Amino acid sequence: MLRIITQISEAEAEIQRICNRTHDDQVIHKEATVREVLQFVKRNGDSAVLSYTAEFDQQTLTPEDLRVSAAELDIAYQQVPKDLLDAIRLARRQIEAFHQQRKPKSWVQFPGQDVVLGKRFTPVDRAGLYVPGGRAAYPSTVLMNAIPALVAGVPRRVMVTPPGPDKSINPAVLVAAQEAGVEEIYRVGGAQAIAALAYGTETIPKVDIISGPGNIYVTLAKKLVYGTVGIDSLAGPSEVLIIADSTANPSHVAVDLLAQAEHDPLAAALLITPDATLAQKVVLEVNRQLEHHPRRVLTEKSIAHYGLVIVVETLEQAAELSNAFAPEHLELEVANPWDLLESIRHAGAIFLGANTPEAVGDYLAGPNHTLPTSGAARYASALGVETFMKHSSLIQYSAEALSEVADAIQILADAEGLPSHRDSVRLRIQRSS
Amino acid sequence: MLRIITQISEAEAEIQRICNRTHDDQVIHKEATVREVLQFVKRNGDSAVLSYTAEFDQQTLTPEDLRVSAAELDIAYQQVPKDLLDAIRLARRQIEAFHQQRKPKSWVQFPGQDVVLGKRFTPVDRAGLYVPGGRAAYPSTVLMNAIPALVAGVPRRVMVTPPGPDKSINPAVLVAAQEAGVEEIYRVGGAQAIAALAYGTETIPKVDIISGPGNIYVTLAKKLVYGTVGIDSLAGPSEVLIIADSTANPSHVAVDLLAQAEHDPLAAALLITPDATLAQKVVLEVNRQLEHHPRRVLTEKSIAHYGLVIVVETLEQAAELSNAFAPEHLELEVANPWDLLESIRHAGAIFLGANTPEAVGDYLAGPNHTLPTSGAARYASALGVETFMKHSSLIQYSAEALSEVADAIQILADAEGLPSHRDSVRLRIQRSS
Repeated sequence: MLRIITQISEAEAEIQRICNRTHDDQVIHKEATVREVLQFVKRNGDSAVLSYTAEFDQQTLTPEDLRVSAAELDIAYQQVPKDLLDAIRLARRQIEAFHQQRKPKSWVQFPGQDVVLGKRFTPVDRAGLYVPGGRAAYPSTVLMNAIPALVAGVPRRVMVTPPGPDKSINPAVLVAAQEAGVEEIYRVGGAQAIAALAYGTETIPKVDIISGPGNIYVTLAKKLVYGTVGIDSLAGPSEVLIIADSTANPSHVAVDLLAQAEHDPLAAALLITPDATLAQKVVLEVNRQLEHHPRRVLTEKSIAHYGLVIVVETLEQAAELSNAFAPEHLELEVANPWDLLESIRHAGAIFLGANTPEAVGDYLAGPNHTLPTSGAARYASALGVETFMKHSSLIQYSAEALSEVADAIQILADAEGLPSHRDSVRLRIQRSS
Repeated sequence: MLRIITQISEAEAEIQRICNRTHDDQVIHKEATVREVLQFVKRNGDSAVLSYTAEFDQQTLTPEDLRVSAAELDIAYQQVPKDLLDAIRLARRQIEAFHQQRKPKSWVQFPGQDVVLGKRFTPVDRAGLYVPGGRAAYPSTVLMNAIPALVAGVPRRVMVTPPGPDKSINPAVLVAAQEAGVEEIYRVGGAQAIAALAYGTETIPKVDIISGPGNIYVTLAKKLVYGTVGIDSLAGPSEVLIIADSTANPSHVAVDLLAQAEHDPLAAALLITPDATLAQKVVLEVNRQLEHHPRRVLTEKSIAHYGLVIVVETLEQAAELSNAFAPEHLELEVANPWDLLESIRHAGAIFLGANTPEAVGDYLAGPNHTLPTSGAARYASALGVETFMKHSSLIQYSAEALSEVADAIQILADAEGLPSHRDSVRLRIQRSS
């Protein structure tokens, strides 16, 4: 079921296939549906949102139902066990501490006489946080999206999430939101939620940036509204790549592969190892652990389609294959992970050594678990405080500083055929000379 | 021609109209054309690129013509006057110095016993730089795109730009490219250039990120390929907003407005001032300077459609209107620009004081001139070294550190219904206890 391959050329082809598993041209016809949803919400506001919620989520709401009430927010605390609340609070503290210290700071400098240069960082005015429902209603997703926006200092942080049966929202999600400083929560999901955040409705405010993962409809909607608002990234199904050597424990490697596969039938779980014996043992372990797995059907599907073990000659080869995949999560279960790290160019998050299963980072180590997928780690990074901030360049020249560079500017402006650019300097120099 | 308005409500409406000047639904039918170009290049590579170049640029090329030859690169230096070369080099030095010192650096930290956290910054493998041709063939655009990629340490930096008459490329563009370390240049523009960079052809390499401004077809193509590759931003027509008080020189304010308008009929140029007399004088000055303007027709069109003077009561009101517009360029031609800065929340670049016309930043102050447009400064920032880099989160736990957080992780994993997440910790703890 979990295949082992040993040919590098086959491995390269398989890595491409798995990496492209969501780049299918079939998304194009879904795009037409999403475009329609966006247009309808843009024109009809709340009433469009409510009609899609009835259609897609089978929940009949009034405009007054849309916002989660203060009473519901309070009650959620009664519904969450004490040990879960404590765990959420531990995670919140560690995630907040990590993000807090890496908050970008404004600065100015004085590179030459009479010149001031700088960058001024400011938060966006409003952030919209998308939190999936159903199978993927995770309090950890709430923390990982809301805390960076909180730390960035975003004045208005709004969350949207689809209603479950009886219009309900998962209480752990509601508690995590409040722990992360979000109290404005709307019961809406799917492309209609993205439309509401991008254009605004009578009830739901238009925001400046939308973050958070979702299904293919949510992702397509985010891509289409990008430019009207900012977005964090286009999230695809999750993936892990493990590089392991003979020092790795086969049972640990196997459980880490399954911890990815259990997310989603489209999740990908790859092992690359120079140890053919380890490869065999991991396959046996995966089968053994799958036998009584509570999410066996889904997890088996993912392992069968997007699970893979590649046996290579050297760890260097493993690193090169990993770079070609550019995994969202990379585990280095090898004797000297910091040495191997030098050969890694592209990965969203890297887990070093035998005692760092991905779950540590998924929940509470501190760094964000919202990471680039489907090869996007070639060019993109984790969600962070900077996602919710932007900077303005600052430039100030004195009259003297301007005259020093006046000739060069005028020559460049003339070369580009922009006379008023030239004159904007020429007229000022005349005055000051 | 340049209108003055004094009603705040009218000002707000006009600002929205100007801000949305490129968000028209009319782009949707252009998208169909662009999608066709992308698909055709994806399937047919060079031959598709050449056929579009014949159709759109009226230039008949062979695959061998696509890449600009070493001889052409050399000859360009003979065609560029010495003073222009010197100006390009001054700009290059200042831009490089500014970007160099703000290059993100990798770090690790040790927040608790037996825990290592960090961020490792790495450049993308390949960057594709789009440089427009025709009216907007600017050496400054080349410098502003190529230098951040160079400073980021991107190993392969590729430029594309449409061929002019006789297949030629502007020699100043070729010189600026070489000064900024780019020697792999292809004669291709438009959506077909973006397709070639996103998918690769026989001649043109697939890249990881595409940066640089272009017309509406280029921008739509960048939006559509986003996700297959990274992009810097969706650039629209340029814009300036000037806040001026009674200390400002009307002739300087006027020339700065025209320096924006002369770019493009869609460029926007706004003045907001509490001084009604200044407003009148600026309008007269704009008319006077337009009389003999070499780009009069184009510039007048821009001023007529997207030029505006707003008279307000206070500088605070001016700042609020500016925040609603979120201008690409903001000039503060006021007595105390650093005081007014405190009220500014959104702007791509801010030019402080009477002696800092936008042209200083356009060409050589150092900060990047590739900036968010059309209100995108609400959530986006200037192009920078970080555009061409990404980071991997680093996490390492010891066995002891893992056991300390093991309970919390297992509780969270159980709450989220992810048994292998729980077991990835449980199995490891068993061993170490």
